[in-house]
Amino acid sequence: MQIGIIGLGRMGANIARRLTRGGHQCVVWDRKPEAVESLAKEGMTGASSPEDMAGALASPRVFWIMLPAGDPTEAMVQQIAAFAQPGDVIIDGGNTFYKDDIRRAKELGEKQIQYVDVGTSGGVWGLERGYCMMIGGETETVRNLDPIFDCLAPGLGTIERTRARHAEDDRAERGYIHAGAAGSGHFVKMVHNGIEYGLMQAYAEGFDVLKTKNSPLLPDDERYELNLTDIAEVWRRGSVISSWLLDLTAEALAGDHDLSKFSGKVADSGEGRWTIHAAMEEAVPVYVLSAALYARYRSREENSYADKLLSAMRFGFGGHVEIPQ
Amino acid sequence: MQIGIIGLGRMGANIARRLTRGGHQCVVWDRKPEAVESLAKEGMTGASSPEDMAGALASPRVFWIMLPAGDPTEAMVQQIAAFAQPGDVIIDGGNTFYKDDIRRAKELGEKQIQYVDVGTSGGVWGLERGYCMMIGGETETVRNLDPIFDCLAPGLGTIERTRARHAEDDRAERGYIHAGAAGSGHFVKMVHNGIEYGLMQAYAEGFDVLKTKNSPLLPDDERYELNLTDIAEVWRRGSVISSWLLDLTAEALAGDHDLSKFSGKVADSGEGRWTIHAAMEEAVPVYVLSAALYARYRSREENSYADKLLSAMRFGFGGHVEIPQ
Amino acid sequence: MQIGIIGLGRMGANIARRLTRGGHQCVVWDRKPEAVESLAKEGMTGASSPEDMAGALASPRVFWIMLPAGDPTEAMVQQIAAFAQPGDVIIDGGNTFYKDDIRRAKELGEKQIQYVDVGTSGGVWGLERGYCMMIGGETETVRNLDPIFDCLAPGLGTIERTRARHAEDDRAERGYIHAGAAGSGHFVKMVHNGIEYGLMQAYAEGFDVLKTKNSPLLPDDERYELNLTDIAEVWRRGSVISSWLLDLTAEALAGDHDLSKFSGKVADSGEGRWTIHAAMEEAVPVYVLSAALYARYRSREENSYADKLLSAMRFGFGGHVEIPQ
Amino acid sequence: MQIGIIGLGRMGANIARRLTRGGHQCVVWDRKPEAVESLAKEGMTGASSPEDMAGALASPRVFWIMLPAGDPTEAMVQQIAAFAQPGDVIIDGGNTFYKDDIRRAKELGEKQIQYVDVGTSGGVWGLERGYCMMIGGETETVRNLDPIFDCLAPGLGTIERTRARHAEDDRAERGYIHAGAAGSGHFVKMVHNGIEYGLMQAYAEGFDVLKTKNSPLLPDDERYELNLTDIAEVWRRGSVISSWLLDLTAEALAGDHDLSKFSGKVADSGEGRWTIHAAMEEAVPVYVLSAALYARYRSREENSYADKLLSAMRFGFGGHVEIPQ
Repeated sequence: MQIGIIGLGRMGANIARRLTRGGHQCVVWDRKPEAVESLAKEGMTGASSPEDMAGALASPRVFWIMLPAGDPTEAMVQQIAAFAQPGDVIIDGGNTFYKDDIRRAKELGEKQIQYVDVGTSGGVWGLERGYCMMIGGETETVRNLDPIFDCLAPGLGTIERTRARHAEDDRAERGYIHAGAAGSGHFVKMVHNGIEYGLMQAYAEGFDVLKTKNSPLLPDDERYELNLTDIAEVWRRGSVISSWLLDLTAEALAGDHDLSKFSGKVADSGEGRWTIHAAMEEAVPVYVLSAALYARYRSREENSYADKLLSAMRFGFGGHVEIPQ
Repeated sequence: MQIGIIGLGRMGANIARRLTRGGHQCVVWDRKPEAVESLAKEGMTGASSPEDMAGALASPRVFWIMLPAGDPTEAMVQQIAAFAQPGDVIIDGGNTFYKDDIRRAKELGEKQIQYVDVGTSGGVWGLERGYCMMIGGETETVRNLDPIFDCLAPGLGTIERTRARHAEDDRAERGYIHAGAAGSGHFVKMVHNGIEYGLMQAYAEGFDVLKTKNSPLLPDDERYELNLTDIAEVWRRGSVISSWLLDLTAEALAGDHDLSKFSGKVADSGEGRWTIHAAMEEAVPVYVLSAALYARYRSREENSYADKLLSAMRFGFGGHVEIPQ
Repeated sequence: MQIGIIGLGRMGANIARRLTRGGHQCVVWDRKPEAVESLAKEGMTGASSPEDMAGALASPRVFWIMLPAGDPTEAMVQQIAAFAQPGDVIIDGGNTFYKDDIRRAKELGEKQIQYVDVGTSGGVWGLERGYCMMIGGETETVRNLDPIFDCLAPGLGTIERTRARHAEDDRAERGYIHAGAAGSGHFVKMVHNGIEYGLMQAYAEGFDVLKTKNSPLLPDDERYELNLTDIAEVWRRGSVISSWLLDLTAEALAGDHDLSKFSGKVADSGEGRWTIHAAMEEAVPVYVLSAALYARYRSREENSYADKLLSAMRFGFGGHVEIPQ
Repeated sequence: MQIGIIGLGRMGANIARRLTRGGHQCVVWDRKPEAVESLAKEGMTGASSPEDMAGALASPRVFWIMLPAGDPTEAMVQQIAAFAQPGDVIIDGGNTFYKDDIRRAKELGEKQIQYVDVGTSGGVWGLERGYCMMIGGETETVRNLDPIFDCLAPGLGTIERTRARHAEDDRAERGYIHAGAAGSGHFVKMVHNGIEYGLMQAYAEGFDVLKTKNSPLLPDDERYELNLTDIAEVWRRGSVISSWLLDLTAEALAGDHDLSKFSGKVADSGEGRWTIHAAMEEAVPVYVLSAALYARYRSREENSYADKLLSAMRFGFGGHVEIPQ
């Protein structure tokens, strides 16, 4: 198929590469001309603007936007909508809040422009491993785009098949699903990231308990000298908690078991927060997903006002002094 | 009554003072002679050692130990036990782990020495306001000590009486209870402190949300200029969340609304942790009490290993760089 | 002053009563005629519609809306706005989301109608104890309404004054504050309720630990027979955790120490959730406030899907069977 | 090697089978004679008692105890210790609290009996996949047992090797580690299970958010019809959160997407609780690991006392009625 890719950061460029390798024709554009030139050298068609891209694509045209969520993506959706024709398709492959998808699909639908939201997991490894995709949009539109999704997905690969699975639709096994109506792709991806935060925090807390057990501050007979690098490695081998995140942990620890090059200040992005919002709209208790998010907030603070207030109260009722000299 | 007070820190000395003002005869001892001399000048009888104290008391003797929990208290209990006579009473007024009380009561019981555990709340304000006491031990022994507890307790005072209360035992209204068998006094006090942590953390988080709403980092139209000092004050007046801890908060904020003299590193003591242990033995979910404890642990760390591991994983799967320059 | 009160539920009716007793002239309206008649019999002026109320008030008119948050309040604001004159004031005394206040103030401002948001705490006790109020709006408007707020507030009363307080503005001490621009009143009230949830959950968890310590399922030597009614009572007396919520707990337990008439399903309202939203916008960790909210969600579920999934995984890796016969 | 296996439940029997297949000679005993007979038919040597087993083994003898943690294991350790000779080795392959290991190693060391603790992960899949083992004990003893561990471990298999790993000791890659001194094997296994709880809860909460998004209670335009079976499947394929627990989830959902055969009451075992204890001794904040444990406690309750107390307070201050008819 022919497809236009807008936004040639790591994700966008690799998606274009994987599609090109799969025999699809990519027309590419980025606000940085050098990013366009670089892919042009790899055999893709460079465009000088989104409008120029539109001219290079046959109707109905497919635009895949791979830009930072929020304003940049929103602006591009509107820019394309301004010149798109009935039947054209706009795909948002970024991490958009799903309610924005619902709104856009409705607005674009009035002009008979199709809108498809694709939640994409796979990070920097996607070019090699393929992308896991969760797709929202109208059934026929999603079906028409199948060659694209099929190419980007990992495929059956060597992953063991799930026993007891008797599904007519084998797309999930090949690494992508049509989750439902507009927004559902990003909704499922959002929850995926919420879970990701929780999993990461579970490992992080556990390794912290191990690490601190080595602390010279503990009495001699309560201390071990645990090798965290080997522990991460052994857990990859037949344990209940083996996972890709553990693989990454083992790799990180193999190179630097004190993780000394990391500051310990951890960023978070919208999906973690939106998962909490969604849980609140549904009245679902999400203790772990919230706690994982808050740990990241806390990691970026030095001494919080909350903590100071605790000290102030303790001073008030008990004369406890927590005032540095 | 006659009573020996061992340990003349702020709590012990004030207990001795309140008892003396109430007409009781206190024999006092501390390992620091100047603490003994100071109270002797206030009219109490100073002792040169626990053994000397024993000689100055008529049988059956009552020893109130007011020392730091753990080794100091344990050692003193054993020291007194070595010379105590059947019928003597040892009171532990500190913050002992209640299972240690159970063990001691059993050991001392074999020598017919009575053991009473008293959980005491009131902090630096107790001399003036009276002490709230939770008492564990044998019924008759606790009854015999009633003049002591009655004197130390706040009494009915001006606190509005609880509607619908029809109890035969008015000790709770006067500020002390006989909670049950040995250890129960400290058990109830332990849970009291567990709750205290939770309450404090609830205020701390709420005030942090208010404070951060003033942050210059927020966009202009999402920022307020809230006066936290006035907010704490107004909540003392007819709101659902009025409390003594809020009174203390209002006082702290009145003097220093940025709480700039506090480091934000918050200590914790055994009771908070033991409450979690107890909850685990009982399989009671204590989300809030745990979270309050962990916030104190976290307050004392700079950059935790857990946080660094999160960054390491993020680098692994997404190439996210959280490495300081 | 003259004031129109719209919405004569328990809160609205009592506000009207307290104002009338304070010498203010209340014109009252409710969609239920009997509610209007009832207050008319107490000497207030009944109106047959909001428009009728407007006719009965001298300019500039003050409308206090005391309706359920959300659609009912929004509709009434719009209804009044349709006939209000420049200089008129609309007060929303309910529990509105503060961003709706900001929007309304802007919309009404274009017509020179003033908008004031008042967060009100005090519940069913307000008529007697007075209302604690947090007010958002323009400074001059709020000042003009001062007789109203002064009358509704508890006043200095018998509450001990905060030491170290040297404020020029004594309104906080009398029970109300002008928090800032539009929405700030409801913002502060929102955080108040968020804290309230946290405080309540801290007590609830602590009392659960006490209660379960009495469980016949525990081994004899690990069980106490704690009297929770007396424990709540004694903690009111000189302990660090005394509070109004504890007073209410003591009262509830005095009447029914098993709390057997309560189902254990606990409702939550918007403020608790919005506090979490606000914390997420500010990146403030609110472990305790979230956990308190989630406990309420969980209280309303029987067996959650989350719990079933845990069992399904345990069955998968360990053959653990958690399937009822 | 020759080895005695005591306790022929699923784990013990499969360990014996895997060792026998690997060419080791197993002498087996269980208090149920039919369990012994069953393995005898598979070619192992059945013993009629632990003492009988001792007679069938050449010195120095190796006893692998695979019994439920707590009293059964403790009693067996003591029983064997009573007749063991210097140089004999007692292995505890169960889920013992690591401080009990430290005590036993010390006690047995006085008789020159070696004690080795082995934390074993792998569940019902171990016979086929191999067991992931974390071993505590003296270096030489552990080295002498290497043929046993090597046989039970999964080996390198087809799992991709960790990049950047340059360890001299390749045991971790083959699926077992010598973690350190006595107790360290069970300590590491304990933390493993603590993490396991956290991971499981993260998935459980996320899938609950997805499931509830399908709820007919939601307004039509806020509802999706998500296929959780396909979502679990697709996340196995190239997503960041792929893991063995997710594989199990996909399998469970493939068979029964409502999980209707599970009651939702989830058991917990000692390791989850001990991980929290350890974290408290180390002052490490473990928000997620605690929350995961508490969710299991809560899953087993109908209406908690804590929840009822919340309702009682709400009734007290707001007249909110949460009393079933």
